[in-house]
Amino acid sequence: MKIAIAQLNPTIGDLAGNAQAIVQAAQQAANQGARLLLTPELSLCGYPPRDLLLNPSFIAELSDTLQTIAQQLPNGLAALVGTVETNAQASQQGGKPLFNSVALIENGQVKQIFHKRLLPTYDVFDEDRYFEPGNQSNHFYLDDVHIGLTVCEDLWNDEEFWGKRNYADNPIADLAELQVAFTVNLSASPYSIGKQQIRERMLQHTAQRFNQPIVYANQVGANDDLIFDGGSFAVNRDGSLVSRAQCFAPDLLLIEYDVTTQTLIPQVPASPTVLPTSADAEIWLALVLGVRDYARKCGFSKAVLGLSGGIDSALVAAIAAAALGADNVLGILMPSPYSSDHSITDALDLAHNLGIKTQTIPIGDAMAAFDRSLAEIFTGTEFGVAEENIQSRIRGTLLMGVANKFGYLLISTGNKSEMAVGYCTLYGDMNGGLAAIADVPKTRVYSLCEWLNQQVKQGQIPANLPATIGPEIIPTHILTKPPSAELKPGQVDQDSLPPYDVLDDILARLVENHESAEQIIAAGFDRAVVQKIARLVKIAEFKRRQAAPGLKITDRAFGTGWRMPIAQRWLPTGQVVTPTS
Amino acid sequence: MKIAIAQLNPTIGDLAGNAQAIVQAAQQAANQGARLLLTPELSLCGYPPRDLLLNPSFIAELSDTLQTIAQQLPNGLAALVGTVETNAQASQQGGKPLFNSVALIENGQVKQIFHKRLLPTYDVFDEDRYFEPGNQSNHFYLDDVHIGLTVCEDLWNDEEFWGKRNYADNPIADLAELQVAFTVNLSASPYSIGKQQIRERMLQHTAQRFNQPIVYANQVGANDDLIFDGGSFAVNRDGSLVSRAQCFAPDLLLIEYDVTTQTLIPQVPASPTVLPTSADAEIWLALVLGVRDYARKCGFSKAVLGLSGGIDSALVAAIAAAALGADNVLGILMPSPYSSDHSITDALDLAHNLGIKTQTIPIGDAMAAFDRSLAEIFTGTEFGVAEENIQSRIRGTLLMGVANKFGYLLISTGNKSEMAVGYCTLYGDMNGGLAAIADVPKTRVYSLCEWLNQQVKQGQIPANLPATIGPEIIPTHILTKPPSAELKPGQVDQDSLPPYDVLDDILARLVENHESAEQIIAAGFDRAVVQKIARLVKIAEFKRRQAAPGLKITDRAFGTGWRMPIAQRWLPTGQVVTPTS
Repeated sequence: MKIAIAQLNPTIGDLAGNAQAIVQAAQQAANQGARLLLTPELSLCGYPPRDLLLNPSFIAELSDTLQTIAQQLPNGLAALVGTVETNAQASQQGGKPLFNSVALIENGQVKQIFHKRLLPTYDVFDEDRYFEPGNQSNHFYLDDVHIGLTVCEDLWNDEEFWGKRNYADNPIADLAELQVAFTVNLSASPYSIGKQQIRERMLQHTAQRFNQPIVYANQVGANDDLIFDGGSFAVNRDGSLVSRAQCFAPDLLLIEYDVTTQTLIPQVPASPTVLPTSADAEIWLALVLGVRDYARKCGFSKAVLGLSGGIDSALVAAIAAAALGADNVLGILMPSPYSSDHSITDALDLAHNLGIKTQTIPIGDAMAAFDRSLAEIFTGTEFGVAEENIQSRIRGTLLMGVANKFGYLLISTGNKSEMAVGYCTLYGDMNGGLAAIADVPKTRVYSLCEWLNQQVKQGQIPANLPATIGPEIIPTHILTKPPSAELKPGQVDQDSLPPYDVLDDILARLVENHESAEQIIAAGFDRAVVQKIARLVKIAEFKRRQAAPGLKITDRAFGTGWRMPIAQRWLPTGQVVTPTS
Repeated sequence: MKIAIAQLNPTIGDLAGNAQAIVQAAQQAANQGARLLLTPELSLCGYPPRDLLLNPSFIAELSDTLQTIAQQLPNGLAALVGTVETNAQASQQGGKPLFNSVALIENGQVKQIFHKRLLPTYDVFDEDRYFEPGNQSNHFYLDDVHIGLTVCEDLWNDEEFWGKRNYADNPIADLAELQVAFTVNLSASPYSIGKQQIRERMLQHTAQRFNQPIVYANQVGANDDLIFDGGSFAVNRDGSLVSRAQCFAPDLLLIEYDVTTQTLIPQVPASPTVLPTSADAEIWLALVLGVRDYARKCGFSKAVLGLSGGIDSALVAAIAAAALGADNVLGILMPSPYSSDHSITDALDLAHNLGIKTQTIPIGDAMAAFDRSLAEIFTGTEFGVAEENIQSRIRGTLLMGVANKFGYLLISTGNKSEMAVGYCTLYGDMNGGLAAIADVPKTRVYSLCEWLNQQVKQGQIPANLPATIGPEIIPTHILTKPPSAELKPGQVDQDSLPPYDVLDDILARLVENHESAEQIIAAGFDRAVVQKIARLVKIAEFKRRQAAPGLKITDRAFGTGWRMPIAQRWLPTGQVVTPTS
């Protein structure tokens, strides 16, 4: 029995477009002799549809679309399509009105409907908001082969692997009791660093433990802040990896289930694709896909960003060029009287390396206009944060002016370390439709840039960057000069922050690991520094609440999965603080 | 048995402060002879604590604080305190790591712990994200009186009242079987228009149906976007209202449970407080509380806002003056060459009426600077939305400059109709720490202003507005002139939008009722208009994502309970759209 995995890149809510992609993949799979087609979780509407699910007409259209593609799928191919079903008993018996479902379609008909059993409701996931969990094992027969079916989270409850149980039920244990031949999983599992390795190790463990092959189909492509990395794969009952689809690109994977030996055998590709060779390589692909898909799915073909001559905007410019093509990226240089000469030359060198266009718009004239406008009300005050922010907001206004005028996507360039401690200006450098590196800590920004330059040195120019690229992408001076916002003379970031390696370590402990100040201090960090950072993280919440969507690459991003009150007093230090604007 | 309800206004995460407020209320209650004290849901940390709950050190401090106040509460008074408990069996048996709990404290000890059974996970509520539902009936004996205990949502599942069942379990049905004498409910139920009437009608129905008195304790005060309106009350088994605490203010309500007659009898106050007399009166109190608490809990004593001479900023100025005191509100007038003369005089008249300070900062000079800066890159283009937005962003930058310089809270003035269709400028008039009327439709903005003026005419000047207030608060001309953003010559809102009564009706159907375009058209609206509005709502999502927290007054606000994808293609009209910036 040939099984095909359609690793698709749906656009949320594009029911017609997503259906068409499923039908095309099915035809391709049928041409290659496939008997069973897997698509990702909720493949008909894309994942996550979020509050679109609250519209009855959306649910009705989904249902209509499912019936329509049932007619369009090739005969002889059984297809598993992710969709949403109504929970008809909800109003009588209680419970949520929908199920997160999979339809088994064959020969023009919906043969069977299955409901996801374990509903993730943590981090970016809100499935309990919409869905009732299915309460029975999902399995079916195809040509007398007994196949178990699971949806994404259904397989993320192996307490042996995790050292803890997440849900009372464990669907694959139930399927093992039913002695299915193998189990398929339809997923929409978002990327974070090293996630593919975790998925494979987990399912290799689960396949061995429950003595059954597993075929895992993942979504690919970015939807707002979430990047889905694909990497669909299959493992045999001995835990061996059978096959793996591409990461970060759509793919069609073909596997044979050999009924005699009860094993999966790779077909196309004949051996697993190679994983990205480092965290940097992986993150690069993720961010490029994230920018490309956000732009495309929102209808933008061109992007604009501010080029400060600093490392953050340098990295984002490189990502944007790789995502959209260098011709479609415009960098704006906006020097002020406080800008150093090298901020201009470094930015121009970068743009030259990438082959992107630039425009220079000095801001001194606008700064002077604001100085005059505010002279009366600011009488007797000293130059301070207010004036620094005005510079940043002038730049943000110029960038939005260009974006609005020409229909470009403004990509903001702030990194996670800045977003964490609030070293960014709301309505200034935070402006943009998408924050490309908002989940990338500053130390990782450096390593990504170094990796990029290393790639070029080795002659491995990343996809879509100009082949004429020089001996480096990121000019060396950008990598070696001390980071500075250049909002007052001689300013550098380290005037008021610890070195970035220390800062990022403290932030990872505070933000990602939920450690208390005492725990961090016990790990060897300075008490005053830890308390200062904890306080800065807390009082910057109002800025993050108004930030652009940021591409998620860690397990704890400041995005849809970060839900922190603003008007609150608690600090992990035990201090009570009164925030300032 | 005397029962006291401490209707408290906690600050999220202020464990020490919240504990102190509970102890003070308990002492006051004990002095009045109370035997049992009720506090709101999660009274120790405030509701909603959101992702603070993910910090183990937060949970540990909560636990420590509970033990501490157990020692401080007066002997002889049994107190029910809302807190969070660890689900010790989660890692073995699966399930969430916490319970939303209530501690029964008496004579220095935690006597019993109860767990909330029904966990709201819809709209602004995310309780399944954190909590495991309790799986048994909550009840206890005090002086041989058998008392049932429920937490907020536990009582929102009366399928007779709602016409549908929301949850499989119904805790009060279980308590009725246990034949409790009466049931208490600890709530944190956020305000929406008419919510108190719904609560009372619902619990009157439930009390009769299950033949038991109900004592309902609600939180008061605003936390970010959510306003809790208090209005704690008690009903007898015949459905009669026994007593009601104040709405929109802290209170201590005292009731006697007469063991002989098995009825509740009011003590203090002797009869129910009077509810606000109209939706406008109620919304006014809600918004004033919302602004006051956001400012106070974030540490602001003063606020700034832009005064355009329009009705939105007029209403917000009045709310701010009532919330913070007229002396603490600064209005900034920022005329452009496109501003009409009346925009200045109307704004100054309003400020005069309210007794707030103003400053005028013309923006023509800054506009000219931006024109010069962008002249080269804008060569050959026509004046359009880009230029309109620049004006708004200059104003937003000036306002933030003042806010940053003096430590004022910038309150933004956009209404819900604008936010819905995107008639607002991101990084411009949307700037602010709090969006006071972001959930108030334009037609309601008018009715609130008319109500205000009516109040003054009747000599009923709203609390905290200057007693010297003139014959009207909102100058008549502001109420009668056509709304305009004044971003180009002669512009009025109705150039490109239907009349606001039509727009608001369509928006309520689209946004609050989830009607499809076809349903709205069938209700008598013009097809082209409905389709245009549906499209505008969709493509403005990127603006709303970056909006300031907006005070919620409807059942469906664009805030923490609105979770819509940005890069998506679905429209309730069936059209596929490509959004523009």
